[in-house]
Amino acid sequence: MWTELPKRASIYEVSLRDGLQNEQRPIPTSAKVELADALFRTGLQRIELTSFVSPKWVPQLSDAEELARSVVVPEGIITSALVPNALGFERARSVGLREIAVFMSASETHNRKNTHKSIERSLETFREIVPPAIDSGMRVRAYVSTVWGCPYEGAVDPHAALDITRELLRLGCYQISLGDTIGVGTPLQTRQICELFLREVEAERLALHLHDTRGQALVNALVGLTLGITTFDASVGGLGGCPYAPGAAGNLATEDLVYMLEGMGVSTGVDLEALVQAGKTAERIVGRPLPGKMHQAGLFRPRLSPTG
Amino acid sequence: MWTELPKRASIYEVSLRDGLQNEQRPIPTSAKVELADALFRTGLQRIELTSFVSPKWVPQLSDAEELARSVVVPEGIITSALVPNALGFERARSVGLREIAVFMSASETHNRKNTHKSIERSLETFREIVPPAIDSGMRVRAYVSTVWGCPYEGAVDPHAALDITRELLRLGCYQISLGDTIGVGTPLQTRQICELFLREVEAERLALHLHDTRGQALVNALVGLTLGITTFDASVGGLGGCPYAPGAAGNLATEDLVYMLEGMGVSTGVDLEALVQAGKTAERIVGRPLPGKMHQAGLFRPRLSPTG
Repeated sequence: MWTELPKRASIYEVSLRDGLQNEQRPIPTSAKVELADALFRTGLQRIELTSFVSPKWVPQLSDAEELARSVVVPEGIITSALVPNALGFERARSVGLREIAVFMSASETHNRKNTHKSIERSLETFREIVPPAIDSGMRVRAYVSTVWGCPYEGAVDPHAALDITRELLRLGCYQISLGDTIGVGTPLQTRQICELFLREVEAERLALHLHDTRGQALVNALVGLTLGITTFDASVGGLGGCPYAPGAAGNLATEDLVYMLEGMGVSTGVDLEALVQAGKTAERIVGRPLPGKMHQAGLFRPRLSPTG
Repeated sequence: MWTELPKRASIYEVSLRDGLQNEQRPIPTSAKVELADALFRTGLQRIELTSFVSPKWVPQLSDAEELARSVVVPEGIITSALVPNALGFERARSVGLREIAVFMSASETHNRKNTHKSIERSLETFREIVPPAIDSGMRVRAYVSTVWGCPYEGAVDPHAALDITRELLRLGCYQISLGDTIGVGTPLQTRQICELFLREVEAERLALHLHDTRGQALVNALVGLTLGITTFDASVGGLGGCPYAPGAAGNLATEDLVYMLEGMGVSTGVDLEALVQAGKTAERIVGRPLPGKMHQAGLFRPRLSPTG
C-alpha cells in the first residue's frame, strides 16, 4: 500500500472561489467575509478568495475587489485569486494580493468554452503576465483543468497536460494544480497521471484539484499522497456542487481530507474542530446542506470514558 | 501504492436491511420489493433482504417474512437476512432463505446495547444456531461490528475482534464482515486492522463493512483491496444515513464503489447503469436525496465525440 507517507501536507482552500462560483443565489460580500474569517481560524494557510474574471461570466464573484479589501488576513495566511488576463492581474494587484492563480485546460474544447481562447492563446497570455507578476513580487500558481477527462472531448492525453505544465513552470509558476474537473478519475488513472508527472516534476511543484462528482476525490487524493504529492485543493463542506441537486458533489471536502490525513499521522496544521465550524458557516451562507461528511458527523467522542 | 490488484471483487448489498432499518417513515413492502427488483437487475449476486430481529427493536423491518416471500429471486442471486437467535433462525428457515447472517460487536458495551447480550452470551447463542443452520444446508455469514471504534467505549483493541472472528470461523461461518460501524477509521488504521487479520485469516473469509460517516468509506475499501480483500458491503445510494440529516452519510455507496473498482480494472459483474437506476429507485422510495455520488452524476458521456 505505502512504505512511507509524507510527514506533512498542505491544503489549498478553494471554497470562497471554486466553491461559491456556481451558486445561483447571490451571496453578500459580508457573508463571504464571515466564511473567510471562519477559515482564517482553522489553521489553513493558503486560501483562494475570489476570481478576477469578468463579472459577466461569473456574477457570483463580481465583488472580487470589495471582498479582497474587506477581509483582514491574519499574519501567516496567504490569500490568492484567479486571474485570466492582464486586466485581471491589474485588478489583483490593485487590492494588494500577494498571490494569483492562472488557469487553463488540458483539452482544447474545454479551454475554449471556459476561457474563450485556444490553449496556445492561453499560454501566450500567461507569457505576458506571469513573469511581470513574479517580478512585482507576487507568487503565481497555475491550474490545469480536465487532466482526467474533458466534458466535451472525453479522454485527454495526460502528455498534453504535462506539456502545458512544463511551460507554466518555465514561466515561473511555483505550483501546478492538476484538475479532475469533472470528477471522472479512479485510483488507477490517478496513479498513472501522478507517476507520469513525477518522473520529471518535483512533488512539491504539483497539487491535485479533485472534484467529488463520482465519489472518488478522497481516494484519488490518497493515491497522490502515497506517491509523494503533498498539496491538495479542497473546499470546506465540499462546497462547489450544483446548487440545484441537494447533496450533489462539489470539490473534495476539506474536513474529510484533513480527517484522513491527520488520522494517518500526516500533519496539516489544521484544527478539525474549527474546520467543522467553518463547514457549518458555509452551509448557513449558502442556505443548504453540503455534501462533506465530517462536518456533519463532528469529531468522534465516545459516550463513555475508555474505563467506563 | 499497489503491485497487483485482485482481478475480481464481490459486493454484498445491504441497502434493503442496513440501509432501510433506520428510516423512520414506514416503507411499504411493495416499495421494498421494487428496490429488490431494481437490485436484481444490476448483476449484484449477494443481497441482504431484511432482518429477523424483533419487530419491537426494528419496526421498519417487521415485514421480514412478507418481504422474503414477496420477492422473486432470479437464479444466481443469493438473498440473506440477519438472524439474532434461534427464533430468528426459524423465521428465516420458514421463508426458505438459503443464507443467514449473525451479528455481534467487538466492544462489550455496543454488543449489550445492540443485542441485549454480553459478547460471551452472543457467542453461546451462535454456537447453538450456526452449526444446525449449516447442517440444514444454509450458508452463514457473520458481522463483527465496532472493529474500528465503539460509540460508547471509544478505541477497540482489534485483537478482540480477531478472537471473535476465529470463533465464528470455527463455528462454520463462511465469511466475517468487519464493521467500521460508526465510520471513524482512516486508511492507516484500516491497513493495521486488515494486516492483523490477514496474518491468519484467508482474504476471501473477510469482508469490509464501512460506514461513510466521516467520508472515509471508499478510501478504506481501497486499502482493503490493495491488501487482497475482495468482498465489500455496500448500500445503493449510500442509503443508511440518519434520515433527519439531509446528505448525512450512511453505508458505502455501492455505485461509487463499483465505479472505482471497474475503473481500476477490478471486475464486479455489476452493471453501473442499472445500479444508477437502482439508486434513483432508492431515493424515490425513501423520498429524499441520498448521499451516494455516482448515481447523481450518472455515467460519463462526453458531449462531443473524441474526433469532434
